[in-house]
Amino acid sequence: MTTLSLTTDFGNLNGFVGTMKGVIWGIAPDVNIADISHEIPAQDIRTGSIALWRASAYFPAGSVHVAVIDPGVGTKRRAIAAKLGGQFFVMPDNGLITPMLEDAEEAGLEVRLVHLDKPEYWLPRVYTTFHGRDIFAPVGAHLAAGVPLEMLGSVINDPVRMPLPKPIRTDDGVEGSIVVIDVFGNCSTNIRVSEIADLESATLTIAGQVIQGVLPSYGYAKIGELVAVTDSEGFIEIAVVNGNAAKTYGIKLDDAVRVRFND
Amino acid sequence: MTTLSLTTDFGNLNGFVGTMKGVIWGIAPDVNIADISHEIPAQDIRTGSIALWRASAYFPAGSVHVAVIDPGVGTKRRAIAAKLGGQFFVMPDNGLITPMLEDAEEAGLEVRLVHLDKPEYWLPRVYTTFHGRDIFAPVGAHLAAGVPLEMLGSVINDPVRMPLPKPIRTDDGVEGSIVVIDVFGNCSTNIRVSEIADLESATLTIAGQVIQGVLPSYGYAKIGELVAVTDSEGFIEIAVVNGNAAKTYGIKLDDAVRVRFND
Amino acid sequence: MTTLSLTTDFGNLNGFVGTMKGVIWGIAPDVNIADISHEIPAQDIRTGSIALWRASAYFPAGSVHVAVIDPGVGTKRRAIAAKLGGQFFVMPDNGLITPMLEDAEEAGLEVRLVHLDKPEYWLPRVYTTFHGRDIFAPVGAHLAAGVPLEMLGSVINDPVRMPLPKPIRTDDGVEGSIVVIDVFGNCSTNIRVSEIADLESATLTIAGQVIQGVLPSYGYAKIGELVAVTDSEGFIEIAVVNGNAAKTYGIKLDDAVRVRFND
Repeated sequence: MTTLSLTTDFGNLNGFVGTMKGVIWGIAPDVNIADISHEIPAQDIRTGSIALWRASAYFPAGSVHVAVIDPGVGTKRRAIAAKLGGQFFVMPDNGLITPMLEDAEEAGLEVRLVHLDKPEYWLPRVYTTFHGRDIFAPVGAHLAAGVPLEMLGSVINDPVRMPLPKPIRTDDGVEGSIVVIDVFGNCSTNIRVSEIADLESATLTIAGQVIQGVLPSYGYAKIGELVAVTDSEGFIEIAVVNGNAAKTYGIKLDDAVRVRFND
Repeated sequence: MTTLSLTTDFGNLNGFVGTMKGVIWGIAPDVNIADISHEIPAQDIRTGSIALWRASAYFPAGSVHVAVIDPGVGTKRRAIAAKLGGQFFVMPDNGLITPMLEDAEEAGLEVRLVHLDKPEYWLPRVYTTFHGRDIFAPVGAHLAAGVPLEMLGSVINDPVRMPLPKPIRTDDGVEGSIVVIDVFGNCSTNIRVSEIADLESATLTIAGQVIQGVLPSYGYAKIGELVAVTDSEGFIEIAVVNGNAAKTYGIKLDDAVRVRFND
Repeated sequence: MTTLSLTTDFGNLNGFVGTMKGVIWGIAPDVNIADISHEIPAQDIRTGSIALWRASAYFPAGSVHVAVIDPGVGTKRRAIAAKLGGQFFVMPDNGLITPMLEDAEEAGLEVRLVHLDKPEYWLPRVYTTFHGRDIFAPVGAHLAAGVPLEMLGSVINDPVRMPLPKPIRTDDGVEGSIVVIDVFGNCSTNIRVSEIADLESATLTIAGQVIQGVLPSYGYAKIGELVAVTDSEGFIEIAVVNGNAAKTYGIKLDDAVRVRFND
């Protein structure tokens, strides 16, 4: 059975996601469907792309990832599908694909992209306000059912890319920023732990606070303490042990995080 | 594999929905289960029925839709199941079935209804406060596993119907109301776009605001503008481009929407 | 097909749960996955264990229940798996297993426990902050795929147990407490209805309010009335008919509920 994931900003109130599942199982009844998130803030392409990027790396080869954060629905923005390494992606061409595409390019993996311009793989009637149901769900289902990527659209090589904040090296360390804040208030950065030679001696600055050293996990400090740890993807994360760092220290997306190497 | 959908006002906190899935897969292990919504406002039968009505039309033939918004649980209100055209519905007899039933009747589709009065298709012990788990989930699973509808209960033809607001023609146009507000604050009406001959020249009034014309989609106006568009079911929808119309203009369910034809 | 359930405090925003599903279906593509709850309050082991205990009893024999409420992730707390009667459980060894374990022991069912110390059944790389993905999900998937429990770890018989509040008999009745508050504001206690010989004549006291008698269901009283009913597991529940008892009367977890027998 193929696995298909869904990432949207649709919320879980109105039944939009369930409708997409009805469409998908009508075309590909044997597919497993995993919700990644439907609580992406409305039209927040970057947050959606990072959630999908973090999750999709853990899906089996051949999985199909359908993502719909789509402020331009019904305009001339393209709908696209891609094969990046062993996985498929279906989404609007608005930058959502950027982190998965950059990773595939850096790793030298297979990269194939098509513009979804074959209506025979869509629902018979397409409404301008719900391409998730009328275009992206059926295309994802056809991919999961084994339709070759190039049958679904014309090959392209100019997908829209979104600027993603990258850490920069400084005289005495590295400066990055907060890119994910999770439900616990833990704040992940774009700084890989592997960029820091000596984790114990590094000094971090965030939101006016100074943190000494990067710990192996939350449990290595006292409850309520502000700490830096390695997050679940190998990046530096700022957290309060059994607390909420984002709320306690007012940390927001894009806040600067400075690391000084002291080794 | 048969698809079964779930629509409730149970929320996702307490595990009620997961419990129903355990019951369903214990009876019908091969069924696909799609959540339509579990965030229907408590006991809001109309909002639940509209969410199910919009979603169920996109499910494959043979699907089973279990809906539990059930303020009368444990009283003498009946539990019912229905075959409407190609799809099955299982729910309390409190009006929830109305929009699907009206559509099937208008389209001249098959309509068969039973009162669920055969306890051999329920869980062995039925608690008065959770018929979702003890009656509706097992009955839905038995339907999905192929038990004929008429085995599950006695035939009836007097289901409870809920009054649904209908648009009315006026001297110079049509007057309807807001029937769905989605997570983006988009406000859908009960006025079909097909009732308006000239979309560009129509004038709409809602919440003291005047809107000129119905656009193909959000992207045809500027960010922040209040617009009328065609929603994903073919009805007039009031929206703010990349914004929240309900919040910005204080639009609520049942607010009047007036359309004046100028053609 | 085997059914696997997931109970966490991860929320549905960041994609953590979807990531776990990707891992599970990569190992066991034929498993059905049911979400029990991902909205358990952060690090609230007791609320999570009660939600799982109530739901898991309704799952088919052979089901695998993966629960991750894990304030000690990355420290030396053990990861465990268990077979209790016909069902499997995979979780951190922090007391989460207590109500299921106590029930199995009281019923004289099979109880087998292992310490998960065989990394060959985990993901190749384990991060200290996300054992849900790197240890619990793959172990649950291997169990669902048929790997014997004792292959996954060394046998133990000293799991961590959590103190759970128990009702106590008084001179003229029984005193218990609120252990679950659901999304409707209904407040369930730890007092079994079967402990009360005459439900009609019993007098209940909660939050300074006096309730006369235990009703069969909500519908037996007027809208807005504070009532005691039998909840969906056979315990006394305090509710407001079509209202919210917790909000209206300020009822909180652990509040005392006194029952006086008048028979």
